[in-house]
Amino acid sequence: MPILGQNQYGKAENRVVRITRDGATHHIKDLNVSVSLSGDMDEVHLSGSNANVLPTDTTKNTVYAFAKEHGIESAEQFGIHLARHFVTSQPAIHRARIRIEEYSWERIEHSGKGAHSFVRTGQETRLAQITYDGAAWEVVSGLKDLTVMNSTDSEFWGYVKDKYTTLPEAHDRILATDVSARWRFNWTDDEQPMPSWDASYAQVKRHMLEAFAETYSLSLQQTLYAMGARIIDHRSEIDEVRFSLPNKHHFLVDLAPFGLKNDNEVYFAADRPYGLIEATVLRDGVEARIPADLTNL
Amino acid sequence: MPILGQNQYGKAENRVVRITRDGATHHIKDLNVSVSLSGDMDEVHLSGSNANVLPTDTTKNTVYAFAKEHGIESAEQFGIHLARHFVTSQPAIHRARIRIEEYSWERIEHSGKGAHSFVRTGQETRLAQITYDGAAWEVVSGLKDLTVMNSTDSEFWGYVKDKYTTLPEAHDRILATDVSARWRFNWTDDEQPMPSWDASYAQVKRHMLEAFAETYSLSLQQTLYAMGARIIDHRSEIDEVRFSLPNKHHFLVDLAPFGLKNDNEVYFAADRPYGLIEATVLRDGVEARIPADLTNL
Amino acid sequence: MPILGQNQYGKAENRVVRITRDGATHHIKDLNVSVSLSGDMDEVHLSGSNANVLPTDTTKNTVYAFAKEHGIESAEQFGIHLARHFVTSQPAIHRARIRIEEYSWERIEHSGKGAHSFVRTGQETRLAQITYDGAAWEVVSGLKDLTVMNSTDSEFWGYVKDKYTTLPEAHDRILATDVSARWRFNWTDDEQPMPSWDASYAQVKRHMLEAFAETYSLSLQQTLYAMGARIIDHRSEIDEVRFSLPNKHHFLVDLAPFGLKNDNEVYFAADRPYGLIEATVLRDGVEARIPADLTNL
Amino acid sequence: MPILGQNQYGKAENRVVRITRDGATHHIKDLNVSVSLSGDMDEVHLSGSNANVLPTDTTKNTVYAFAKEHGIESAEQFGIHLARHFVTSQPAIHRARIRIEEYSWERIEHSGKGAHSFVRTGQETRLAQITYDGAAWEVVSGLKDLTVMNSTDSEFWGYVKDKYTTLPEAHDRILATDVSARWRFNWTDDEQPMPSWDASYAQVKRHMLEAFAETYSLSLQQTLYAMGARIIDHRSEIDEVRFSLPNKHHFLVDLAPFGLKNDNEVYFAADRPYGLIEATVLRDGVEARIPADLTNL
Repeated sequence: MPILGQNQYGKAENRVVRITRDGATHHIKDLNVSVSLSGDMDEVHLSGSNANVLPTDTTKNTVYAFAKEHGIESAEQFGIHLARHFVTSQPAIHRARIRIEEYSWERIEHSGKGAHSFVRTGQETRLAQITYDGAAWEVVSGLKDLTVMNSTDSEFWGYVKDKYTTLPEAHDRILATDVSARWRFNWTDDEQPMPSWDASYAQVKRHMLEAFAETYSLSLQQTLYAMGARIIDHRSEIDEVRFSLPNKHHFLVDLAPFGLKNDNEVYFAADRPYGLIEATVLRDGVEARIPADLTNL
Repeated sequence: MPILGQNQYGKAENRVVRITRDGATHHIKDLNVSVSLSGDMDEVHLSGSNANVLPTDTTKNTVYAFAKEHGIESAEQFGIHLARHFVTSQPAIHRARIRIEEYSWERIEHSGKGAHSFVRTGQETRLAQITYDGAAWEVVSGLKDLTVMNSTDSEFWGYVKDKYTTLPEAHDRILATDVSARWRFNWTDDEQPMPSWDASYAQVKRHMLEAFAETYSLSLQQTLYAMGARIIDHRSEIDEVRFSLPNKHHFLVDLAPFGLKNDNEVYFAADRPYGLIEATVLRDGVEARIPADLTNL
Repeated sequence: MPILGQNQYGKAENRVVRITRDGATHHIKDLNVSVSLSGDMDEVHLSGSNANVLPTDTTKNTVYAFAKEHGIESAEQFGIHLARHFVTSQPAIHRARIRIEEYSWERIEHSGKGAHSFVRTGQETRLAQITYDGAAWEVVSGLKDLTVMNSTDSEFWGYVKDKYTTLPEAHDRILATDVSARWRFNWTDDEQPMPSWDASYAQVKRHMLEAFAETYSLSLQQTLYAMGARIIDHRSEIDEVRFSLPNKHHFLVDLAPFGLKNDNEVYFAADRPYGLIEATVLRDGVEARIPADLTNL
Repeated sequence: MPILGQNQYGKAENRVVRITRDGATHHIKDLNVSVSLSGDMDEVHLSGSNANVLPTDTTKNTVYAFAKEHGIESAEQFGIHLARHFVTSQPAIHRARIRIEEYSWERIEHSGKGAHSFVRTGQETRLAQITYDGAAWEVVSGLKDLTVMNSTDSEFWGYVKDKYTTLPEAHDRILATDVSARWRFNWTDDEQPMPSWDASYAQVKRHMLEAFAETYSLSLQQTLYAMGARIIDHRSEIDEVRFSLPNKHHFLVDLAPFGLKNDNEVYFAADRPYGLIEATVLRDGVEARIPADLTNL
């Protein structure tokens, strides 16, 4: 008989908005929460018995109830509350993984009364993944869709040439990418002091942007490593960073047929294909745990 | 024989990035330009003769060449250069319409040398549509995907109830929408002084956001009208505004089954269906010209 | 005071699935229905009074109730029921426009009991738009995302060359497009016999595909006209067709650097930019009514 | 110093269309090919030296050249040619992974001459992933976006109820999902006879659809296992199957407020949130190798 392997289930993409009112000043947290549970689930697969199954609808209800009961201090803290609950309250659930997307808002400046009007910043989407098995925590935070560009200080030459190589070497090119990154915290135990999740996120983002801007780049791989190393060097709470960086090609347009010189001024921004550079940067001595292929959620 | 009606053709979605170098300080313009031409085009439809057809590939080349020849002062100014060129240089072309999306970038703050590192702001996409028939100009600017929310100061009651009505009245609700707006300038003639396109855009966006924030709303229609009226009242260069505003429903979650009170704190952000509110606001005495259905580009 | 122009409102994208059980044989209709109403709506914009406003939530409820009360014989017939209801039952509503997307399913062949298992065909999305003002009907049907390709019998030459033209002439190229089409019926009055909506749709799609396949093409415009003319010539119930046809470029890859000859064998399928060809084909003597710019829904 | 961990790079999403002409009868293969290479890549990350780097542009060229040199017999066979080439021709490349999406086309039936007109079927996207390290092969095929529905023969009851459970038990519900599946072949060695890739794919798809249709379902997990077990039982070339199945909820609409009975006839098709059921089904005695989280490409 075929064997059941790894399995997990839950309710994905629960969109929860939490408003906190401090008089006429409101605060907003806007999350997309996905719950994924594992445990003694053989029977539901083999016979269809749901005796061990907490319904995915219940996991959805729990997300909304916890937004009230615990509030949403940060995506990571909220995920910790949820993961702990499922593992400790359900005997058949041995592991819970909570994935969260967070959308950020800023205040609309205006001269009216109150502070309860917001506009989505629309820049990157913040990510958090919290996994708990009843003993140890794994928290991986991240972001996606942070689009950056250096309009100079990037070269690409000295590479292998085989019979299929036609690319001319470049000594001044645009370097652009949509940063998708995940970083793992070394906080694993309730006994350890918990990191300050929001402050850590802000600093990691700052370090990534600075390293991207300040690295004179001979390859996107070099820039990637510089971004990861900067985080490992400056943020002791983080042990591992994984990047997936599409090389968003900007091709210099040949204007010679029109009698024009293109002195690194006019570029065609291409869609597909694109280079894709992926790597992990680790603190010395730690083991890598973030999967090689990042998923979208 | 079937008759040929309105027709237009061109190259859509030419992605052009223009870098301007002022020493180590770079400036960036990032556009998506679509060209659409009309004129004496019966034969290409009826017999396939291309004798009157400037290839769409040529219109693409022209976009890139003009980015060098004229630079990109603003999306509108760039579109004016292009539209004028096609209509005045090609006898068979009687009308040109240029549509432009613009993506905005901000500088990455860092302590390294130079100012040539950027991050996409990611908020709204700016839009411009320039139409020229050899005699008169029509410039319609706009934006899409500007997501805004008021977490209070919105009500909805006193509406018609028929046999299919179940909605309870609301006296304190979230009001959220993705603003899609188009506004038409009264500049139509080369003899008129041209508006300052970038300054106008910034002010229109500001007025929209302020009107959204400052309007105590009894309906999304009321908010829409307030946003449009604010623009017409404050910006004499604009005669007409069209909005398409999805009502992004945020439903208060019923937490009573869990023994919890939800005092306008926890909301479910719904996807579909959504209310869709669309209307034009006009300067008194002018004729509406923006189509009722806004297109995505 | 700024003037209120054209306005409309309603609930968009109501996803309704209707199952009809004929014993163990089930039938399925899968629609996405958008309601848009216009009428005496000045006050809701100017003062926020909802006294004339049937809530968008009620229009949603009506969609689901009508799926039970009237069934869904076809998208067009369902839209006619809805539009008539809103205009005739609500004094303030003077015009209703119903837009419908329909997704098609086919049966999964299997050897078990019953016939209630389906797989989405996934080809084109069928469209219908029904507008009623209490006196006359306008029915526009259509489709989108029907992707077609001729791998030969397409040329492009003899076009205008200006100083920006670099395109070489082509005497054997791929012609591919995603067909987006809308066609208007001449049924406008309850006294006229109603077309057979489903049979008409199937025939129009067949004629479009056949005309695409059988036309030796000197330009995409010629193919477009042939597709429209075929419909006007063969389907007396239809007076007007509008097409928006992106020219999905397939560029022959230059394999000469690798010592290989590419005899129309290996192509790069490009994304952006793309040619965009749009035109209306009309029955002689009728007036065009479909807007030049097709919207996505 | 921070350590470099797993890394890979290459050109993603090379869109290649291969036409084979058999007189006036043409055949088409339409692929999206992503190349990912690993090996001695420390220096490019640490110092920016590209001495070991075959450019991603070269990997793109190789895809197009191989489409001519080897043709595209099947996605899997094409990927095997590519992976073998990179690993055996480049000393610094120790592992190549080729991912392929395939889009299927069917012929347009018509009465004209030739057989070179096609329409995209638009159903599922076929997937293939070929990995080679110079010694062993791993081939994982799959599909995504195969949308299926049973309109009856699905129940859900007997589950755990905790304080957050409100879901009523269901004894006749719709079961619908978008199948995303990957299956691993036990072909790993050039000495073994190679499976017939296209025939295998067709049979796996048939078994999945039949198992979905023929399983009376007490949970989506049970249906998932039945689909996987059917494949393992019937296809000896496959050792492991992984599924990611969103539970596309179709909620019975409450029509009682309108005096109507909804006897499993009218459903609301919801978007988010959705249940997400993921599991592996394995041949007894083999080790699982497909990652728990499926990626989109």
